[in-house]
Amino acid sequence: MAKDSKTTSSGMEWRMTLPDNSSARAEQCVEWQVTVPEGSTVKVEHETGIVARAWAWLVRFLVMLKDKFVGFFKNVWQLGVDDPRKVIHAFKVGLALALVTLFYYTRPLYEGVGGTAMWAVMTVVVVFEYTVGGCFYKGFNRATATVTAGFIALGVHWIAHQSGKQFEPVILSSSVFLLASAATFSRFVPTIKTKFDYGITIFILTFSLVAVSGYRVDELFQMAQQRISTIAVGIFICLCVCIMIRPVWAGQELHLLIVRNMEKLATSLEGCIEEYFEEDLNSEKERSQKSLGYKAVLNSKASEESQANLARWEPRHGQFGFRHPWSEYLKVGISMRYTAYCIETLNGCINSDIQASNSVKECLSDECKKLVTQCAMVLKELSKSIKEMAQSSSLDLLVGNMNMAVQDLQDALRSLPSQLQEEAQVQNVATMPLMEVLPVITVASLLTEISVRIEGVMDAVDSLGELSGFKPVSDDKPEKVSTSNDETKKTIEVI
Amino acid sequence: MAKDSKTTSSGMEWRMTLPDNSSARAEQCVEWQVTVPEGSTVKVEHETGIVARAWAWLVRFLVMLKDKFVGFFKNVWQLGVDDPRKVIHAFKVGLALALVTLFYYTRPLYEGVGGTAMWAVMTVVVVFEYTVGGCFYKGFNRATATVTAGFIALGVHWIAHQSGKQFEPVILSSSVFLLASAATFSRFVPTIKTKFDYGITIFILTFSLVAVSGYRVDELFQMAQQRISTIAVGIFICLCVCIMIRPVWAGQELHLLIVRNMEKLATSLEGCIEEYFEEDLNSEKERSQKSLGYKAVLNSKASEESQANLARWEPRHGQFGFRHPWSEYLKVGISMRYTAYCIETLNGCINSDIQASNSVKECLSDECKKLVTQCAMVLKELSKSIKEMAQSSSLDLLVGNMNMAVQDLQDALRSLPSQLQEEAQVQNVATMPLMEVLPVITVASLLTEISVRIEGVMDAVDSLGELSGFKPVSDDKPEKVSTSNDETKKTIEVI
Repeated sequence: MAKDSKTTSSGMEWRMTLPDNSSARAEQCVEWQVTVPEGSTVKVEHETGIVARAWAWLVRFLVMLKDKFVGFFKNVWQLGVDDPRKVIHAFKVGLALALVTLFYYTRPLYEGVGGTAMWAVMTVVVVFEYTVGGCFYKGFNRATATVTAGFIALGVHWIAHQSGKQFEPVILSSSVFLLASAATFSRFVPTIKTKFDYGITIFILTFSLVAVSGYRVDELFQMAQQRISTIAVGIFICLCVCIMIRPVWAGQELHLLIVRNMEKLATSLEGCIEEYFEEDLNSEKERSQKSLGYKAVLNSKASEESQANLARWEPRHGQFGFRHPWSEYLKVGISMRYTAYCIETLNGCINSDIQASNSVKECLSDECKKLVTQCAMVLKELSKSIKEMAQSSSLDLLVGNMNMAVQDLQDALRSLPSQLQEEAQVQNVATMPLMEVLPVITVASLLTEISVRIEGVMDAVDSLGELSGFKPVSDDKPEKVSTSNDETKKTIEVI
Repeated sequence: MAKDSKTTSSGMEWRMTLPDNSSARAEQCVEWQVTVPEGSTVKVEHETGIVARAWAWLVRFLVMLKDKFVGFFKNVWQLGVDDPRKVIHAFKVGLALALVTLFYYTRPLYEGVGGTAMWAVMTVVVVFEYTVGGCFYKGFNRATATVTAGFIALGVHWIAHQSGKQFEPVILSSSVFLLASAATFSRFVPTIKTKFDYGITIFILTFSLVAVSGYRVDELFQMAQQRISTIAVGIFICLCVCIMIRPVWAGQELHLLIVRNMEKLATSLEGCIEEYFEEDLNSEKERSQKSLGYKAVLNSKASEESQANLARWEPRHGQFGFRHPWSEYLKVGISMRYTAYCIETLNGCINSDIQASNSVKECLSDECKKLVTQCAMVLKELSKSIKEMAQSSSLDLLVGNMNMAVQDLQDALRSLPSQLQEEAQVQNVATMPLMEVLPVITVASLLTEISVRIEGVMDAVDSLGELSGFKPVSDDKPEKVSTSNDETKKTIEVI
């Protein structure tokens, strides 16, 4: 007999017994021998029929399907609750489309899907974007590309028509081939890609459509006129709905993103160091949530860039003029990412396996915490300065404090060996080995590096402030800052 | 007299003299008094006429324009020379369009731009993408969305038609409003966004167009049939041209990107450490070019993600099956970025102002270099393993060596204080201050952290290898590796 036995964790043993000679007969004569601990109740369930099993499977399947659907819709609902502007955007698109359909429905002139009304519908569908900048970008591109391509195509069409029936298809097809190739290749040029990508699609499309059409030139002129007017109606409805009803400005989004990310950077830096130096693990989860804020900074490159691109198309709105220096925001973003790389490394070192003992940590704890507090204050002040678009009166002071804190930390590092010697004598050890101290030293020098990079952030914010004309310092401000932070007041006296 | 004087660096002084009493008259009576060093030649140029100035301006403007154009076209040319596939892609688009126009030009059935031929042209223009995956994604989305939206719209149209002339526009417009809103909102759901973004645009478009049209339902059926057949022709031509002529597969691009980035990571790590420890500044430029390779890793998140998305749509090609685990590549990319963050910080520390003296650097130089060499070897082996899609036979050995190098570095750090004591005695100083040693210690512990992160990369590559079935280890490989690197051979004997 071939035996195969297993013991489950509850102490029950089951054993499958197969006859020795035949594996083919195995299916028919498998014996199950179940050994249960004494006192267990045993219940043998016979196999149920096919119908019952199919039914059970169906029920399970439906329940699973229901759960999936419910889960999905809960997620979707949450999406809307988290950012109601997305829901509003969806309704805005619906409204713009309903308006355009009603507009053409009430005008029998443009009846039918084959007519020109479809160009208005199409325009609304493809031009309506989440941000106003997106709408302007696509609207401008669509209009310009249609007009340009239309005129070039008319010219080519006229030439082809003049050269006789025989050459017409050759000239038309080869012009489509050449212009489409050239336009497609131009998309690989970065500056064209960012500003006119959509326009090039429309250019190729319009040119091909007009070139292919079998109409005469004067018919084409009339068509072009109609087409352009419908596209204009589409773009007009889009822009009206987009700007009138709760507009989302790409520029403002970028502004807020940078402000928010800078605050996250500050709190995550504080969070990291709290995590490192404090033993109280009560609110660990909340803290590590807080300390991971830098990840948002690491991941926002793409959205910063696309928002800066779209913001260029936006007219004056709120505090932002037409030629607001959006590219400066990108520079601030880059400098913040540099800082975030360093915080990421710091976080890695803090969570590494090799850690210094608490007594060693204690030696630098105060200085490190102080430096981090100062760094965070500088970042928060910078964030506030961008948010309010006003120069900060207390920034120089805060940076001075930060540099003093760096100096203090370096002094503490200088006196560390003698401090450790004392510590070692207390603990009756010959010397404190360097390896014990190494993790703390690394943390300290990463903090120093972070403070250097924060100065880079400050420079970027400075040049943003200069170019976008931040409000100059007013006299009543230092008061406000110093009352909100007593430590700052003290250091004013020290300086 | 109000005076304002400046001295230029060449020793020449110029002075502007204004009459005291009037600022309004200033324009008319500004006197220039130029004091030049003895022996200088002075040449006074009188103002030229308007025509001459305009001419000069025009010439300068034209030259500038020419320079700009020449510069732009040189850049564009370079773009094509650097990656000829881009030029080929452009010609492919041209070819596909020329084919589709010829196809419909030779069939008088579909004449005119208002006819259905335009849908084929439009399909080619918007569906043709750089990668095969992109073509499949857009083609599938376009086809599915057109069919689905068409059927739903026909149903709504039928209902509206049944409810009489009065309710028809209301039902149609409100259905457009509701469906367009729902579809637009669904775009904010990340999974739908990545897979069906384009499809939703087409869904809204088709639904609106059909709902708006004033045709009867049976007319619509015929139209739908024609529309679908033209779109099918467009997609078919696209896919044929895209796959037949020098196809660019998103999957392969992703594969190569990951391989290339891993090599860059290895060389940039080596470059950083070379830069730090070596004094020979001959080829500094080349070296810092080399050491900045990690930046490519930091910046390739977006392209990795989009390529992985498109790769999912691609059929079997080369070494890659239909359900190749593309998301595993993303995980490898993430782990590489983690390493790159650390290398970035290392680079910052290396280029910081505070540096250790050479004698201190010397103490750890050998161990650091050895660790970096081992780290780079592991990365290169991983890169090779992905490139050849084969498990590496020597990887375990290399990782063992890397960990031994970490151990050696830590031993060296342990013996650093006594070494420094000796050094200090030679130099006749009491003790070597910690601040002198700090930068080297930081570099050493960052290197340790980097080696930990490289193990993370290894784990990610491992799971990629498992899921995509890398070729198992063959027997003749270890030989090859050990001959290519003598140091490895030695350590085999040590182990």
